[in-house]
Amino acid sequence: MVENVSVGLLGLGTVGSGVVRMVEGHQEELLHRVGCPVYIEKVLVQNLEKERACVIKPELLTSSAEDVVNHPDIDVVIEVIGGIEQAREYILQALNNKKHVITANKDLMALHGAELLSTAEKNGCDLFYEASVAGGIPIIRTLVDGLASDRITKMMGIVNGTTNYILTKMDKQNLTFEEVLKEAQELGYAESDPTSDVEGIDAARKMAILASLGFSMNIHLDDVEVKGISNITSEDLEYARQFGYSMKLIGNARKDGGKVEVSVEPTLLPDTHPLASVQNENNAVYIYGEAVGETMFFGPGAGQLPTATSIVSDLVAVVRNMRLGVNGKSVVAPQFEKQLKQAEEIEGKYFYRLHVKDEAGTFSALTSVFAENQVSLEKLLQKPVDEDGVAEVVLVTHTTTKHQNEQIYQQLRDTGIVKVIKSHYRVEGGA
Amino acid sequence: MVENVSVGLLGLGTVGSGVVRMVEGHQEELLHRVGCPVYIEKVLVQNLEKERACVIKPELLTSSAEDVVNHPDIDVVIEVIGGIEQAREYILQALNNKKHVITANKDLMALHGAELLSTAEKNGCDLFYEASVAGGIPIIRTLVDGLASDRITKMMGIVNGTTNYILTKMDKQNLTFEEVLKEAQELGYAESDPTSDVEGIDAARKMAILASLGFSMNIHLDDVEVKGISNITSEDLEYARQFGYSMKLIGNARKDGGKVEVSVEPTLLPDTHPLASVQNENNAVYIYGEAVGETMFFGPGAGQLPTATSIVSDLVAVVRNMRLGVNGKSVVAPQFEKQLKQAEEIEGKYFYRLHVKDEAGTFSALTSVFAENQVSLEKLLQKPVDEDGVAEVVLVTHTTTKHQNEQIYQQLRDTGIVKVIKSHYRVEGGA
Repeated sequence: MVENVSVGLLGLGTVGSGVVRMVEGHQEELLHRVGCPVYIEKVLVQNLEKERACVIKPELLTSSAEDVVNHPDIDVVIEVIGGIEQAREYILQALNNKKHVITANKDLMALHGAELLSTAEKNGCDLFYEASVAGGIPIIRTLVDGLASDRITKMMGIVNGTTNYILTKMDKQNLTFEEVLKEAQELGYAESDPTSDVEGIDAARKMAILASLGFSMNIHLDDVEVKGISNITSEDLEYARQFGYSMKLIGNARKDGGKVEVSVEPTLLPDTHPLASVQNENNAVYIYGEAVGETMFFGPGAGQLPTATSIVSDLVAVVRNMRLGVNGKSVVAPQFEKQLKQAEEIEGKYFYRLHVKDEAGTFSALTSVFAENQVSLEKLLQKPVDEDGVAEVVLVTHTTTKHQNEQIYQQLRDTGIVKVIKSHYRVEGGA
Repeated sequence: MVENVSVGLLGLGTVGSGVVRMVEGHQEELLHRVGCPVYIEKVLVQNLEKERACVIKPELLTSSAEDVVNHPDIDVVIEVIGGIEQAREYILQALNNKKHVITANKDLMALHGAELLSTAEKNGCDLFYEASVAGGIPIIRTLVDGLASDRITKMMGIVNGTTNYILTKMDKQNLTFEEVLKEAQELGYAESDPTSDVEGIDAARKMAILASLGFSMNIHLDDVEVKGISNITSEDLEYARQFGYSMKLIGNARKDGGKVEVSVEPTLLPDTHPLASVQNENNAVYIYGEAVGETMFFGPGAGQLPTATSIVSDLVAVVRNMRLGVNGKSVVAPQFEKQLKQAEEIEGKYFYRLHVKDEAGTFSALTSVFAENQVSLEKLLQKPVDEDGVAEVVLVTHTTTKHQNEQIYQQLRDTGIVKVIKSHYRVEGGA
């Protein structure tokens, strides 16, 4: 049986430092959990001379990745440098050298997950990535183990803390998107280039990872339909509240028969939905399993310690497997052929906010667009706006298909009676 | 390597039938997950002739437990008969016969968990009990694996669906405890003898199991301080709302230094607390880990399918371990000596609703009771009641100790100015 385990770390930023601190500071607990000591052997850094937040012996540092991924004594490589191409190369090299790999890299897993997992499988290595999805929530382990015997048909996630923080603040303090984004950037909750967060790309990566695992299909980032939050206005949030909804950026993955849909988009949730009460920078993943019904997992989405905790949990799992000689058994490459739903097969309800001409016949002309497409309305509100000759109409449809909705959208846009489609969101709930 | 696995079932009630249906109906998925077929070999029933909800070959049924626990071919015994003494005996016998055991029996695990776990460890057998705590929530696996590297300092749970259903209905529909209980009994959400649920005993069992695991101490049912919900009135809920709280029956387990407290009691939660929004018969467990911070796991607390799902997940884990030859390794008997906090060491805020004499000097006499005990008040409300010469005072203290609070309670009870202590609850939140 393996009597001690050596770990190589790629990267020593905030998460890497957290991992070092947890591994060095919890030696006794680790020993008790895995039965043998775990050492940090080498750490790849960019600059050997830089001051560090964590205490680490200088001789452990290296500026050459080769010293980690080719090191003969290193058993486990933890990748926390981020980025795509270099990280991919290092991980492939490590796996081909029969080293187990733990990564927090969602960008990489969303793009190259299938390749990396099959390389791990081929080499009999573990490749764990709990930290890539929702820092502090053990959601991947839950999907792999806890819900193993269930058939998962629906996953909905608030998987990006920055956008949830922004939407919460906009809603509670009645501020605009721009105002809150600026504040979030000042507080360090949003990056100086916030595109990946606010346009939903970060969330889409995580949903690709979750959907791949939950549905056992190779869902690629490109398969995820994405819409961000930067066009949401205070008026939209105001109407949402009035109708009993909360606006959230929701990652949505559904399976019907063998076909799936995966999207990330601003969505109106009924206030009674478990995800509606997830506030601030928190994350949550809601899962519907045929047997278990509704479950939800809530927690911090990111942060140094939550992410480091997930990585160390993965490390414990790898070391246990090493001691038992069973690595690579729980790496499961996707089992089913990917089949994406067509627009005709995707069902949903939709919210529209429209500015229309305030004149006789408008209303019947408007509703007939929906009627002609066999879509009935669940909620409808009309009120005057300050602008001359314009009325605002806000409505929510009953359940329809994405295809029908696209047709309605086009017809509304092209008809003379609608001056402008102010906003347009998906609504959760209903049959 | 093990090439097929035989399962014996003790009990064929609703949960047992669910397990049979899932094992028989998911053969292909099971095969894929564990790599070998899993058969049901024998099922203990009380009455061989009874009509059954699930299709099962008559020759599999037996009315003798010996046919299951001593059966030479049976590898895994699933106990779903409930009760204490007989179940304990069967499980001990099965473990001593080197059979792995899965149980959904919280009563048994809360009382005899330590004995059963050490018997399992001694025999190199798995003893899994995910279904015993919160039917559909994989909370035990999360504590054992997902949060393995963290130090858990606080667990709060809504772990009884019946009481949460009753409190939700009382609050939303402004009904009395008795009215909702009657309705719940008619709907089958509450048992005809509801004592174990409404007096908090069921929740206390689950908290004993969670605390034992989370703190790695042998916490016994008797170590859990218990108070039920049967005395909660509509007035209490009304004031709670007014103060910004939700009333929930909360299982509370905390660790400070090496000492722990475990209780189940009606508790006022700030509306912003993640547990405050858990409605109806749902369960949720909130965990605070030093590294991960706040996490919460939400789901159905019981029900045939959620419970059967948890059992089948445990079965998958047992079979995987069998195939790898590593059973008994993840059975961890408590590591730390049990140390319970004294009343002086337990901190909390408290809510009081008092009827006092409506006369000059009452208010200062009342507040001086708190002042003398060095407890300051956070919220205070006085209003007249219809009764002659009586005023109602509702207050919430700042953080104090349980000991100080008990002294205050006694002094209030014994002083002439308080006519009656109408109610008295713990309040969550604050330092």
